[in-house]
Amino acid sequence: MRRIDNFKSIIDKYDIIFFDAFGVIKTYQGLVSGIEKTFEYLAAKNKEYYIVTNDASRSPAQLAEAYHRYGLTAITPDRIISSGMLTKEYLDLQVQDGIVAYLGTPESSHYIDSSGLHTLPISQINHHNMDKVGAVIFLDDEGFDWCADLNKTVNLLRKKTIPVIVANTDHAYPLSPGDVSIAIGGIAAMIENIVGKKFIRFGKPDSQMFMFAYDLIREYRTVSKKQIVMVGDTLQTDILGGNKFGLDTVLVLTGNTLPKDYETRITATGIMPTYICDSAVVELGGLDF
Amino acid sequence: MRRIDNFKSIIDKYDIIFFDAFGVIKTYQGLVSGIEKTFEYLAAKNKEYYIVTNDASRSPAQLAEAYHRYGLTAITPDRIISSGMLTKEYLDLQVQDGIVAYLGTPESSHYIDSSGLHTLPISQINHHNMDKVGAVIFLDDEGFDWCADLNKTVNLLRKKTIPVIVANTDHAYPLSPGDVSIAIGGIAAMIENIVGKKFIRFGKPDSQMFMFAYDLIREYRTVSKKQIVMVGDTLQTDILGGNKFGLDTVLVLTGNTLPKDYETRITATGIMPTYICDSAVVELGGLDF
Amino acid sequence: MRRIDNFKSIIDKYDIIFFDAFGVIKTYQGLVSGIEKTFEYLAAKNKEYYIVTNDASRSPAQLAEAYHRYGLTAITPDRIISSGMLTKEYLDLQVQDGIVAYLGTPESSHYIDSSGLHTLPISQINHHNMDKVGAVIFLDDEGFDWCADLNKTVNLLRKKTIPVIVANTDHAYPLSPGDVSIAIGGIAAMIENIVGKKFIRFGKPDSQMFMFAYDLIREYRTVSKKQIVMVGDTLQTDILGGNKFGLDTVLVLTGNTLPKDYETRITATGIMPTYICDSAVVELGGLDF
Amino acid sequence: MRRIDNFKSIIDKYDIIFFDAFGVIKTYQGLVSGIEKTFEYLAAKNKEYYIVTNDASRSPAQLAEAYHRYGLTAITPDRIISSGMLTKEYLDLQVQDGIVAYLGTPESSHYIDSSGLHTLPISQINHHNMDKVGAVIFLDDEGFDWCADLNKTVNLLRKKTIPVIVANTDHAYPLSPGDVSIAIGGIAAMIENIVGKKFIRFGKPDSQMFMFAYDLIREYRTVSKKQIVMVGDTLQTDILGGNKFGLDTVLVLTGNTLPKDYETRITATGIMPTYICDSAVVELGGLDF
Repeated sequence: MRRIDNFKSIIDKYDIIFFDAFGVIKTYQGLVSGIEKTFEYLAAKNKEYYIVTNDASRSPAQLAEAYHRYGLTAITPDRIISSGMLTKEYLDLQVQDGIVAYLGTPESSHYIDSSGLHTLPISQINHHNMDKVGAVIFLDDEGFDWCADLNKTVNLLRKKTIPVIVANTDHAYPLSPGDVSIAIGGIAAMIENIVGKKFIRFGKPDSQMFMFAYDLIREYRTVSKKQIVMVGDTLQTDILGGNKFGLDTVLVLTGNTLPKDYETRITATGIMPTYICDSAVVELGGLDF
Repeated sequence: MRRIDNFKSIIDKYDIIFFDAFGVIKTYQGLVSGIEKTFEYLAAKNKEYYIVTNDASRSPAQLAEAYHRYGLTAITPDRIISSGMLTKEYLDLQVQDGIVAYLGTPESSHYIDSSGLHTLPISQINHHNMDKVGAVIFLDDEGFDWCADLNKTVNLLRKKTIPVIVANTDHAYPLSPGDVSIAIGGIAAMIENIVGKKFIRFGKPDSQMFMFAYDLIREYRTVSKKQIVMVGDTLQTDILGGNKFGLDTVLVLTGNTLPKDYETRITATGIMPTYICDSAVVELGGLDF
Repeated sequence: MRRIDNFKSIIDKYDIIFFDAFGVIKTYQGLVSGIEKTFEYLAAKNKEYYIVTNDASRSPAQLAEAYHRYGLTAITPDRIISSGMLTKEYLDLQVQDGIVAYLGTPESSHYIDSSGLHTLPISQINHHNMDKVGAVIFLDDEGFDWCADLNKTVNLLRKKTIPVIVANTDHAYPLSPGDVSIAIGGIAAMIENIVGKKFIRFGKPDSQMFMFAYDLIREYRTVSKKQIVMVGDTLQTDILGGNKFGLDTVLVLTGNTLPKDYETRITATGIMPTYICDSAVVELGGLDF
Repeated sequence: MRRIDNFKSIIDKYDIIFFDAFGVIKTYQGLVSGIEKTFEYLAAKNKEYYIVTNDASRSPAQLAEAYHRYGLTAITPDRIISSGMLTKEYLDLQVQDGIVAYLGTPESSHYIDSSGLHTLPISQINHHNMDKVGAVIFLDDEGFDWCADLNKTVNLLRKKTIPVIVANTDHAYPLSPGDVSIAIGGIAAMIENIVGKKFIRFGKPDSQMFMFAYDLIREYRTVSKKQIVMVGDTLQTDILGGNKFGLDTVLVLTGNTLPKDYETRITATGIMPTYICDSAVVELGGLDF
């Protein structure tokens, strides 16, 4: 059905590259082998790049640090756009004061902290402070007691009409080559269904993620969507979202979508990347620079 | 829009009465006040009755015992039809041997035990016995560690293609006048969505619940659907299910559907009971017998 | 993953065989080649059989006639259980008088006609007779003006709270080897979504279809579910429905599910037939009788 | 629960006003009575305004002309942002050449025309030109034969893996005080469900609609989201979408949401406008300017 394209020749055609993180740059075992060469090449060619990720469990600084521990120093916090940053922007614009109750680890809540707002885990909401709760946010599947705190969240949301933000649209995430974990996005969908209210979701494939990155770039330079390419491993988030926003897209086969079934999946879902590559690794020969 | 009917004059027209349990016979506070008189009247008039309930957390014997503790001795185990009984019938017919892994309390699993089958909580499934697991059943929201065991269930179902039975179709259940609890049916829906496989659900409004009761009766007598009326407090389960099975239905306003909004809800959902009554209590005067 | 079973040796184990029609007994080109031998064998062995079909567009008599034209005289009207028959039973039990407005051909409405009821195409509903409409039924995708009559149905159902019955759960049906047609079940789902009310659906995989057939048999003989096997070509309707009702099932590969992808589909959906056969054709040798 | 706010005092706080069209500025009877005064006031106060509408059935020029016929000359084509404009942008960026097959009137397709592209109604697609079809767009519920052309669309999309754009997210639209029409967004959802592929939807509540308007403004001036307010009559599109994009919102009660049930609907959906007003009409006294 479709040829496999050369990743290097693709990025040569664009000025700015958006990368998904998991399945493109790193996997459970650490970095995708050889991916440092891609970032060397981007630096040499003076191309800009951003990591656009649905991971709201940690701040950009913490996410960048994790790459540095693996030896990939090219990814600095200012290069990372996460769904958590959209959550923070929303709270800044729409929730002026009071308590923001959250489901997640304390770390996941820190970078959401905003001048007038006070974040508090759901477990600490009680009859005394319930009146002050101005929003609920779903940040991470860790850091709380699922049974006690999910039931508490359901009953809080039945009583109060307040914004509910889900900072991760994924329903599950990979944990090891064989296993996945239920993600906070999947838990949030169950609770949304039970309370019957509309939650606000931030994350790919929603175009607001791409807009946020696009806007950051336009703060200091002029750019058109034709100069940007989105690189991802998941058809339903990276490719669908990038494409809907008007970007060209590259599907890589190092993560969610496997070499053996990418054709079947593209036909079944109707989600078509502009290009398909084995990986996002740039193979550098002697003459590449 | 609609008159409120007299419950006694309705049951006079039928030979067999199906009752939902929660919101019709009992609430959080115990029995619906005066409901004993209904069962006295049914006995005096020689009417048959069955409790048709989505509660699979306990056996009919245990459910009956709970009524007896409240002083309602008229409800004996043979009068109770639960979604757990359909689960047991399914396992008898379709899962001959091996392990049935369950989510729920040990009590909820006891009455599922069948000659050739061995029930084991999900927490005790490991690499040694995983091969023998022939079915997974969702019985109760209590009795297990939500985070650990739900993730374990997801990964078990990703690896094995086996029947999955959900013995309760409800997504939440009432806990107190103000609060609800997430029900095992809601949890199962989240996991079904994540693993992408079809689960088998037993419980109202599915007609199999009504068939099971109807069949039990027909084992010893001849009966037509026109002789049976279903009494319930929930439009989406009791009334929709009874109606689809071809039974006349009575909506009572002592539970899920409130006197102040039953008309709005009937119009909004399009689910119409044959009758509407304040409660299932028969007001007995001196001349009633 | 799975062996291909011998169809003859399977039916030898059961007393009653339920067959799906399309994809099992017939296709666009006419009868499945050799299928007459299966019915000869069933007759010789004195096995009972029923055709259990979601086709509500014609009466059992008309459906049987179509088999006779192809030369398959073994299928008589009393052997055919259709979702239209459940619709008729529902109307008999729950809609005593008035007009039943329908979407479909005049033929599809004829066998729904009941003593006290008057069927009328949606196109003939107007301000004068609208008050008398007591139910709406979706029978067939042919016989009406989609644009005018679907809009008319939406507005009728916004104004009236009456039972709506969908006599076919399929969303599309095969028309030729390459093409499908939108089925009345798909159209009904769109309208249900727009008006926000619950429709009553009859058809596989709902157990009421199987119960109807099971009950017909029990009128004249004793039977257990273990004596019946359901033969079908579609995992989501025939196999899921039969299995949930407690029947053993045979997936045949002459229709919806293809030899090249049945394993993938079973794993993806988690719907497992008891047996898998190339077709429902019994290959008769000299010693078979 | 909530006060009714004064519309004039609200718009005094913002620099740019986004208006929904139907239910806010016009209804079936023509303009909302007195709405001209609002636009006079906006002109006098030098406030900017845009009409942000899911109506893709006509070009901004044609939509503006309709207001002019009613005597509202303040609304010029450059003030109108429609979901059709996002469709055009998508085609410009992502579909370079070939045929764009459409469902809708010829007028709805004209303004989609792009240099390299050729629009053709679905009815004119045949075996000769099918290979050249590069995208399918759903524009309007009028201008085609529902039965023939929807079935043709289903079969085209089963054979080709190409982008499908739905230029209107609504499932129904109001036609008269009592009646609605099925919208192209509802029809598209039925077909998406049947073919099992992901369609690209443009329209409120999706943030891309708001981004498009926001970007247009930023081409010639600096603006922050805090300076903009979105005025609409529908919670699920105008208010949810505006709020998610970070804008303050005004719910007006002249359209979809009625004075008698706005409180119930806000509580039930959890979608909260920043303000609630009887209408978007500015009542001008002598001292207002």
